[in-house]
Amino acid sequence: MQAIGYYNGEYGPLEEMKIPMLDRAVYYGDGVYEATPTRNGIIYALDAHIDRLYRSAAYLSITVPMDKQTLECELKRMVALMDTGDNVLYWQVSRGTARRAHPFPEGHANLMMMITPYTFPDLSEQVRCITREDTRFLHCNIKTLNLIPSVMAMQAARERGCYEAILHRNGRVTECSKSNVHILKDGCLISAPADNLILAGIARSHLFEVCGHLGIQVVERAYDVRELMEADEIFTTSSTSFIHRVTSVDGIAAGGRDSARFEALRDGVWGRFVKATDI
Amino acid sequence: MQAIGYYNGEYGPLEEMKIPMLDRAVYYGDGVYEATPTRNGIIYALDAHIDRLYRSAAYLSITVPMDKQTLECELKRMVALMDTGDNVLYWQVSRGTARRAHPFPEGHANLMMMITPYTFPDLSEQVRCITREDTRFLHCNIKTLNLIPSVMAMQAARERGCYEAILHRNGRVTECSKSNVHILKDGCLISAPADNLILAGIARSHLFEVCGHLGIQVVERAYDVRELMEADEIFTTSSTSFIHRVTSVDGIAAGGRDSARFEALRDGVWGRFVKATDI
Repeated sequence: MQAIGYYNGEYGPLEEMKIPMLDRAVYYGDGVYEATPTRNGIIYALDAHIDRLYRSAAYLSITVPMDKQTLECELKRMVALMDTGDNVLYWQVSRGTARRAHPFPEGHANLMMMITPYTFPDLSEQVRCITREDTRFLHCNIKTLNLIPSVMAMQAARERGCYEAILHRNGRVTECSKSNVHILKDGCLISAPADNLILAGIARSHLFEVCGHLGIQVVERAYDVRELMEADEIFTTSSTSFIHRVTSVDGIAAGGRDSARFEALRDGVWGRFVKATDI
Repeated sequence: MQAIGYYNGEYGPLEEMKIPMLDRAVYYGDGVYEATPTRNGIIYALDAHIDRLYRSAAYLSITVPMDKQTLECELKRMVALMDTGDNVLYWQVSRGTARRAHPFPEGHANLMMMITPYTFPDLSEQVRCITREDTRFLHCNIKTLNLIPSVMAMQAARERGCYEAILHRNGRVTECSKSNVHILKDGCLISAPADNLILAGIARSHLFEVCGHLGIQVVERAYDVRELMEADEIFTTSSTSFIHRVTSVDGIAAGGRDSARFEALRDGVWGRFVKATDI
């Protein structure tokens, strides 16, 4: 399938695109990124993703090489180049291009984009997860390119035939390798607080919004693996995977005890996307 | 100054070299690296650096795309291409090239190399450091491309006119952004243990070897910032920077009270390099 890449003004087929060896993303992972689905040529939750990119960049003192409006135009141009409306749009900003030396270099940051055709997931599917100690750095609130622990956690999950790895710090549940995780208990939604241990997902904020419409109370607080295992429902959210119901954790049946509420949340999250991207 | 890049068999001037956008180093920092000085065309401590690269790769289940002997040949070829004998040779192996998805991709890993002319540092200079909370991941024993916290720590040091940032976890000294740090106290060398909180430097092992020759006892144990501030000497080691005496920490005079032992260690570390790279 066709996919397109972009780097500092140049476009091309994704598989043929190249970037300078001296881009600091290459040897330090020194950059930040965003990804979101597009449907019917519409980029979902674009403003929220753009705002978060600028926030991530600011945390690292990276100056995004254009203003928000110009970035929005560039992102929309990528989508317009595609021959299908269902895609994932990814973009990253790295600190710059220079010979390898830790201190910040002179010169401007780099914008890279990738757009790839995407088939939206089947949200009626129930998924299995593993748990795994969260050994990541203490800046998980920043959406950076330093993703080795997430890669390793996801691979461990996949090797066990699972969808995701639920990470925890000494028992305290944080998030998954590329999703947030939430539980339902006694009709309330419990979700880890948006501190430096998780990336506050945009799908997570959509979920909270849907909770509001459904009258489901949202409690942002720390919870542990024991509480997860005893929850009525467990589910993940992410911008590109939306919402997935977890019914097995480390091979043990879990969740799956509040179908009505979970399905209302799922329909709400998916429905929000469909409504925003209908034409 | 001339500098050369290499990527999977292709060579070129470093500033002109490009790599695929879909190399996982670019968007996950999914790889490992090494760097060491060369002098008179000789790569310093080559076997130790090659061995560590393979160990780092194995931790991440990355298969280096050639055996050690072939890698050694490739590295030596890079040095032979240079018109000066004093360089830093850097090489990294990333997991592979594929469209962005967390699980390990099919296909082979990528070898990238860079060689740049280098002026060896003046080791008689005394340096100042800052201290900083160590917020890195818990895999600091692996020499990965996920280096944002190190970049930020080094930048913070440089903005304060300092040479390095001495990192600590809740008071416990680990290492610096790109060096190990050690102290001398009552004639003994104290150095953080080689656990998952530090990268066990090859210069660190050379330092221990020199201690052996000088009859200085090496104690590998945790120590805190208070002990650092009260040490007789504080100094950093790294493969490319060798050994630097620290005489100010967070603007407070520190160390500098056991010149004879420090100078013997410094001469030993530097002398080891000179001897190994003389022709």
